[in-house]
Amino acid sequence: MLMNKKLGKFITIEGIEGVGKTTNMTFIEEWLNKKCISYVCTREPGGTPIGEDIRDLLLAPRDELVHENTELLLMFAARAQHLAEVIIPSLRRGEWVVCDRFTDATYAYQGGGRGVSHKIISILEGLVQGDLRPDLTLLLDIPVNQGLERAYNRSKPDRFEQEKVEFFQRVRSSYLSKSSDFPEQYRLIDASKTLIEVQLQLKDTLEVFLSETA
Amino acid sequence: MLMNKKLGKFITIEGIEGVGKTTNMTFIEEWLNKKCISYVCTREPGGTPIGEDIRDLLLAPRDELVHENTELLLMFAARAQHLAEVIIPSLRRGEWVVCDRFTDATYAYQGGGRGVSHKIISILEGLVQGDLRPDLTLLLDIPVNQGLERAYNRSKPDRFEQEKVEFFQRVRSSYLSKSSDFPEQYRLIDASKTLIEVQLQLKDTLEVFLSETA
Repeated sequence: MLMNKKLGKFITIEGIEGVGKTTNMTFIEEWLNKKCISYVCTREPGGTPIGEDIRDLLLAPRDELVHENTELLLMFAARAQHLAEVIIPSLRRGEWVVCDRFTDATYAYQGGGRGVSHKIISILEGLVQGDLRPDLTLLLDIPVNQGLERAYNRSKPDRFEQEKVEFFQRVRSSYLSKSSDFPEQYRLIDASKTLIEVQLQLKDTLEVFLSETA
Repeated sequence: MLMNKKLGKFITIEGIEGVGKTTNMTFIEEWLNKKCISYVCTREPGGTPIGEDIRDLLLAPRDELVHENTELLLMFAARAQHLAEVIIPSLRRGEWVVCDRFTDATYAYQGGGRGVSHKIISILEGLVQGDLRPDLTLLLDIPVNQGLERAYNRSKPDRFEQEKVEFFQRVRSSYLSKSSDFPEQYRLIDASKTLIEVQLQLKDTLEVFLSETA
């Protein structure tokens, strides 16, 4: 799909609720600025006008039980637009793309969490992404109880945050399993440590990644 | 998917803009009432709270060019919810379901109109519907110019109605081609005639269908 030799790098940040993605995204932006690397920071679901509208549909608590296939297809609908409008054009311009959650979140939440088969997710992944995959996935990992405690203290829970602890345990297990299946793409960051320690891990990981891609 | 012997019948109404679906849906409802058949009338995209929200996203004119895969996946997201919440439970209760547009519209609009491959639509059809297909599809057919003239006189054009004439010609061709490929499911209704003549065709078709299913 992307044949240009001067492509930007595609970095995704993954992890359960309360793992500190937002704070650490800011840290990564600062690191990219210091390195004088052009980049766009974006998020899923969302990242485009219609994608953000789809995000609102997905996150708003509803009286109606949203069917797992509906949730899955909405995620990929937003992703298709995000790829066409933001991610692929940016990478083609040579910019790095840093994305708060991507398809690995679908494997974790809709796959692990809701029980949608990986085969179905994989078919949709191929349909909307072709062979495009992240160059680097930073998995911020934290025990579920610790993450949820942080998330609940922060804001009113969205439709996903209203799920039970067991749901997030399945999500976390999926992330960890994917991480060990794809060691070349994934870097596991222990997000239970202090912010300074977490950011030291991130910095080391990014420096190694940059040196390998130079 | 549906093993119960006393299932209701699943009837879909298809056709391009201005073909008279709304008026003729009312006529079909009156016919079902006369026959004392329990039924639900519904529509796509839509038919459920989240499905109607997705419909709003799909139909609203936008500054942003909506990617064909986004449109396709939104259609099937709404459909997955519609099947789970309305269509399948109603059929299982023995009620007939009369639906203003269904997956054949996706083949016509996203397939014929936008150029999405039929293979991809067919994969999504299998994913959300299993082996459920309409028992009867009433294709209201009209020359494109005649249909658009009626539609434009009616209301402000939505995102689809803003398309060019060629788009609707491809949509109409897709419908006609599907109709000739699936003669057991499809009944072609000449909607260019007067309302009385159209409704006479509908009544005859429904009477024959009822006698065959009794």
